[in-house]
Amino acid sequence: MTALAKIGIILVGPTHPGNIGAAARAMKAMGLVRLALVNPKRFPCAEATAMASGADDILAKAKVCRTLAEALRGYGLVVGTTARERSIAWPLMDPRECVAHIMDSTLRGDVAIVFGREHSGLTNQEIELCNFLVRVPTVLEFSSLNLAAAVQVIAYEVRQAALRRAPAPSRPAQTLAATGEQMEMLYAHLEQVMIDVGFYDRAKPRRLMRRIRRLFNRAEMDENEVQILRGFLAAVQSAVVKD
Amino acid sequence: MTALAKIGIILVGPTHPGNIGAAARAMKAMGLVRLALVNPKRFPCAEATAMASGADDILAKAKVCRTLAEALRGYGLVVGTTARERSIAWPLMDPRECVAHIMDSTLRGDVAIVFGREHSGLTNQEIELCNFLVRVPTVLEFSSLNLAAAVQVIAYEVRQAALRRAPAPSRPAQTLAATGEQMEMLYAHLEQVMIDVGFYDRAKPRRLMRRIRRLFNRAEMDENEVQILRGFLAAVQSAVVKD
Repeated sequence: MTALAKIGIILVGPTHPGNIGAAARAMKAMGLVRLALVNPKRFPCAEATAMASGADDILAKAKVCRTLAEALRGYGLVVGTTARERSIAWPLMDPRECVAHIMDSTLRGDVAIVFGREHSGLTNQEIELCNFLVRVPTVLEFSSLNLAAAVQVIAYEVRQAALRRAPAPSRPAQTLAATGEQMEMLYAHLEQVMIDVGFYDRAKPRRLMRRIRRLFNRAEMDENEVQILRGFLAAVQSAVVKD
Repeated sequence: MTALAKIGIILVGPTHPGNIGAAARAMKAMGLVRLALVNPKRFPCAEATAMASGADDILAKAKVCRTLAEALRGYGLVVGTTARERSIAWPLMDPRECVAHIMDSTLRGDVAIVFGREHSGLTNQEIELCNFLVRVPTVLEFSSLNLAAAVQVIAYEVRQAALRRAPAPSRPAQTLAATGEQMEMLYAHLEQVMIDVGFYDRAKPRRLMRRIRRLFNRAEMDENEVQILRGFLAAVQSAVVKD
């Protein structure tokens, strides 16, 4: 089950160390080992270790980062979790459907599953780093899952999918998934060209760039496709009137 | 979803009040409401209420019993949970398969799902009160799920099964999918701009356009996104040097 080794769990801004430990325990029982923490309130911490209940090896190896972008370095597909329908209207999947997608994507690169803060989830800026969102189907009136419980559900679905798929199907060799850095460079390049040709004005709200990100993130681009679009953008830059 | 109202969760001999509260929270988020406790070490208890995090109505209505047999009164199907393969060799199912069975059975009566003690699970005598066992598929070397995490996984599977059996929810209005004609116009426009800026030469093989199509088709674009890209392309055309 090498697919499981390619999947990282990222907790953004966890407040309660106990949740970090419980999340590590949930991961380990399901065969996941890669944990990263973005700005944890307290870590390392005895309470986290106690709740890990034997999964302290995962805590010991956990990467602590300052920003989500930093934690995402090297990952291809990025899946965000959300507790509610968001006004931002990012593509939203059910856990089972989402995990099928994740398993396919492990054949092309590493996959990050991102969990937001206990009380406020992920910010819109953080969501824009995700290819799509997954939501555990709770009842409408009580959508509050504990953080570790949410990790448990998603990790369980990942494990079920890995068990059902093993042995991995041999797929034709494909190009590598574009990394987050490559996508950011593409967006920066596209934004610049949009400004150069007078299509976009930074002074105006950034809704346009969000729509652009949503479109291209949804496509889960590969490196080659990023190169093609950037080649096109460079050609546009050479061709526009310089004044 | 009347099926959910027919399903009871029974915790046998829970030691940590926090686990009772966390289990109640997991149940409530998944639409389950019937909780019974067999010989809890401490209950009611502030720690349970704190971990319930808003699911205290479930704790308030929880039935406290002296024996599992007493808690099972009125139930038809009884499903036990186990963390390991048991020497007692009771029929053992996977959660998904087990829950399909549970849902069928709610048509005929109430169903109990029984969770054992944190450290020692259910006794052989208690297992004999069960129709079959369910086991969450953990890794072999680390089969220890937290009690509330186990309740979360099973409750999640129950909810998924209930949702899949209920009539499909009406989906929120979304923007219209781009039509084939709109996509063709987008591709023609993009091809023209690529030629205008010297990025593409029709005399060369058409592999580039095929890659472009594959990328954008995969994204399943909506009308609005097509308009944005075409607006950008028009802006490029106005900006390039005419010679």
